[in-house]
Amino acid sequence: VDIDLNADLGEGFGRWTLGDDEALLDLITSANVACGFHAGDPMIMRRVCGQAVAKGVAIGAQVGYRDLAGFGRRHIDIAPADLTAEVLYQLGALQAFATAAGDRVRYLKPHGALYNTVAHDEAQSAAIVEAVLAFDPSLPILVAAGSALARIAATSGVGVIGEAFADRGYQPGATLVPRDEPGAMLDDDDLIARRAVTMARTGQVTAVDGSTLTLRVQSLCLHGDSPGAVARARSVRTALLAAGFTLTRFA
Amino acid sequence: VDIDLNADLGEGFGRWTLGDDEALLDLITSANVACGFHAGDPMIMRRVCGQAVAKGVAIGAQVGYRDLAGFGRRHIDIAPADLTAEVLYQLGALQAFATAAGDRVRYLKPHGALYNTVAHDEAQSAAIVEAVLAFDPSLPILVAAGSALARIAATSGVGVIGEAFADRGYQPGATLVPRDEPGAMLDDDDLIARRAVTMARTGQVTAVDGSTLTLRVQSLCLHGDSPGAVARARSVRTALLAAGFTLTRFA
Amino acid sequence: VDIDLNADLGEGFGRWTLGDDEALLDLITSANVACGFHAGDPMIMRRVCGQAVAKGVAIGAQVGYRDLAGFGRRHIDIAPADLTAEVLYQLGALQAFATAAGDRVRYLKPHGALYNTVAHDEAQSAAIVEAVLAFDPSLPILVAAGSALARIAATSGVGVIGEAFADRGYQPGATLVPRDEPGAMLDDDDLIARRAVTMARTGQVTAVDGSTLTLRVQSLCLHGDSPGAVARARSVRTALLAAGFTLTRFA
Amino acid sequence: VDIDLNADLGEGFGRWTLGDDEALLDLITSANVACGFHAGDPMIMRRVCGQAVAKGVAIGAQVGYRDLAGFGRRHIDIAPADLTAEVLYQLGALQAFATAAGDRVRYLKPHGALYNTVAHDEAQSAAIVEAVLAFDPSLPILVAAGSALARIAATSGVGVIGEAFADRGYQPGATLVPRDEPGAMLDDDDLIARRAVTMARTGQVTAVDGSTLTLRVQSLCLHGDSPGAVARARSVRTALLAAGFTLTRFA
Repeated sequence: VDIDLNADLGEGFGRWTLGDDEALLDLITSANVACGFHAGDPMIMRRVCGQAVAKGVAIGAQVGYRDLAGFGRRHIDIAPADLTAEVLYQLGALQAFATAAGDRVRYLKPHGALYNTVAHDEAQSAAIVEAVLAFDPSLPILVAAGSALARIAATSGVGVIGEAFADRGYQPGATLVPRDEPGAMLDDDDLIARRAVTMARTGQVTAVDGSTLTLRVQSLCLHGDSPGAVARARSVRTALLAAGFTLTRFA
Repeated sequence: VDIDLNADLGEGFGRWTLGDDEALLDLITSANVACGFHAGDPMIMRRVCGQAVAKGVAIGAQVGYRDLAGFGRRHIDIAPADLTAEVLYQLGALQAFATAAGDRVRYLKPHGALYNTVAHDEAQSAAIVEAVLAFDPSLPILVAAGSALARIAATSGVGVIGEAFADRGYQPGATLVPRDEPGAMLDDDDLIARRAVTMARTGQVTAVDGSTLTLRVQSLCLHGDSPGAVARARSVRTALLAAGFTLTRFA
Repeated sequence: VDIDLNADLGEGFGRWTLGDDEALLDLITSANVACGFHAGDPMIMRRVCGQAVAKGVAIGAQVGYRDLAGFGRRHIDIAPADLTAEVLYQLGALQAFATAAGDRVRYLKPHGALYNTVAHDEAQSAAIVEAVLAFDPSLPILVAAGSALARIAATSGVGVIGEAFADRGYQPGATLVPRDEPGAMLDDDDLIARRAVTMARTGQVTAVDGSTLTLRVQSLCLHGDSPGAVARARSVRTALLAAGFTLTRFA
Repeated sequence: VDIDLNADLGEGFGRWTLGDDEALLDLITSANVACGFHAGDPMIMRRVCGQAVAKGVAIGAQVGYRDLAGFGRRHIDIAPADLTAEVLYQLGALQAFATAAGDRVRYLKPHGALYNTVAHDEAQSAAIVEAVLAFDPSLPILVAAGSALARIAATSGVGVIGEAFADRGYQPGATLVPRDEPGAMLDDDDLIARRAVTMARTGQVTAVDGSTLTLRVQSLCLHGDSPGAVARARSVRTALLAAGFTLTRFA
């Protein structure tokens, strides 16, 4: 059985680095490349795209709010037409580097507060879908399957790849526990690896209240910006391979 | 005989506007669209690209230094590899809007201090050419024919469209009089229209010291951000048509 | 009887201008100077502070969200501690120019979406009050008297100057009609001047539903960034003087 | 004998960190706090100022070009009047946090490319001095003693504290070896500690060509943003104490 592993990459900016992009590129199949609005700069985007292509990893546009100071983690009440334009801008910018590396952008994934917003916000979700339709209607969106964005994309004929997070806590409604609440982040590597295998096999995950959720899981997201992130990603990958999965990029 | 008329468009940012894009689009054949680094934002880029395509005007990427506060008018001693990446980023971003409007980016033109720098700076010129080669080697560069950029582009097999400015003063070496020096900007509309016709016909222009320069002129640049800019552009256009020229986009 | 007239000033950025600062400085008594986060740059701040001091106009810090692209008109879900720090930063930056001009910052006024947010949001309101307490507890806040910010400031011992808008529509709850809804902006100069006099005299204003609100009005805000703004400001000023008011800065 | 130890602090931005500010604050006597233009954000500035005051470390304004993407390491050909305004802005912003922490800004130090530029550029040097005169003429400038900035500051009655870098290579003219050339950075901790003691004692340093320079050294700068920076700073500090120096802030 196939499963995709994705991670956020290229999230440094100028002098500042974040995570170990090269190490992660050896472990994942899909790279969510930051496009300069919440993180990422042209030099980083060029380098990551080149490395991703060299390693056969799919390049996805990790689009976010225009908020370097907040790393895209603060909701912005942006008008839908503005959001569509900002997503188009980010898609195009990344496409230039994917093109220069001999490939193209293969999918879109919203970042941070935008990810949380499109779990429920229909106007911002529709704005993203409009950008995809204008840029390349064949581009799938990588996002939680139960989100407003997934729903609106499907209605508009845009592909959706359902993803889940093995290292994040889930609320009963299948949304993530907010980062500033207890249970948001798991940190037991074995538990995370077991959750990853269960998620990939059955889509099931235990929420923070003990209830069982069933998600549509075509890709698992690994976080790359914490200490020990590479070791954790490696243990998830190893567990999936041991459980008989084939790691295959969806795009 | 054919001549192209180009102007800088889309140079507002957010709440701030600059020039009358719509009026100019009725007069020119090539639109140098700002790409968000010295001016321009995604909303403006989307709108200008849509209008340009509707009016049959060619879309060019007006790339600049990352300097909104200085409108790209201050030289930045940026490393060539960084500049290549920044130009790629801007080209790609604009391409998204050109694509969404049913067209594509047709040429590149450097803006402001970058324009002045590539008159002589070989490292930054080569950096721009490298970006064009990586993005789309068939894309011509619109720039003064005698510049370092024109020379390096030609050497690398990248097309060059020679341009001249009917409303700017020229120094004996065929460079523009800097904006903060006397004679930089002409403001007699009749004189400007006559200069435009002469430039288009013979490539000749009288420099500030009275000497005669001969330039390769395939496009004339009109400035759009001053009071009276639209009236002046119209008088140049009228004079060229009256002199028997056909206004044709080069791209 | 005394009344204060305030207006937003210094809201250009780099190459871009907005409004006629010099003309407004002859009409108002308090200048809300943009501090670089939603608009304004160091050159503009320096010039406006110099002109304000020369004309005896009080300098206030018009603090906003960090959002040049959105002109501070989009709500940002910023953490209170971050907002306190951002307000301190803006207060300090403006203080440098006020000091250089021989004066000091005399009050604080929130801008745009932040103004709308602190009408009701207690966390962001408390964050602003904390910044004032840390910077200069004697600094009053210019804001609608019924807002959460006014309430929390008063509780914390920070002064509040109640303001009203003669040219904006009011909702029954004494909040402004949002800018994208009908009735948000009035454009009959005579009506606006009459509303201004009534507001200044009695605090009463007719809301969009016809009901009468009574506000605490110590200052009237004039908008400077629309065509005809200066003429309108002058007509309000003239009407107030004719009605016997003395225009006096509160700070 | 007294010697001051200074280091660049607060050079993260938003999600991104750089160096170990807390560890360095235990070792130095003067903190060059980034002011948001090349690095630093309001949250970081507030935290560092609070910690510096708690530990008795002097707060200095580390002012730079407006260039987050380039970390202030690229020369910008900014007009002097603009630079004066940008320095005033940064001084004021930091002052707000110093004030909130119960202290005030004690000195100014230029950062990165601005530091290199004011080694020789008289116009930009005079612009910085003008900002100091407008903000607080009693504020000394921390900079290499032989620089154009030091000369112009002295002429204008602004204090100069001469500094040297124990871990950077020097060119014969007493300027630093540029970062992209061999010999720019030393990495032998013992050698650096010995250089520091010699510099503090005699002002003498061996340049890359073997010649001996004599500098006026009232403060030694330690770099905090490289791996091993804290250990190196500690070894310099230890060597200075062992050599009989007293570590005393100059301001």
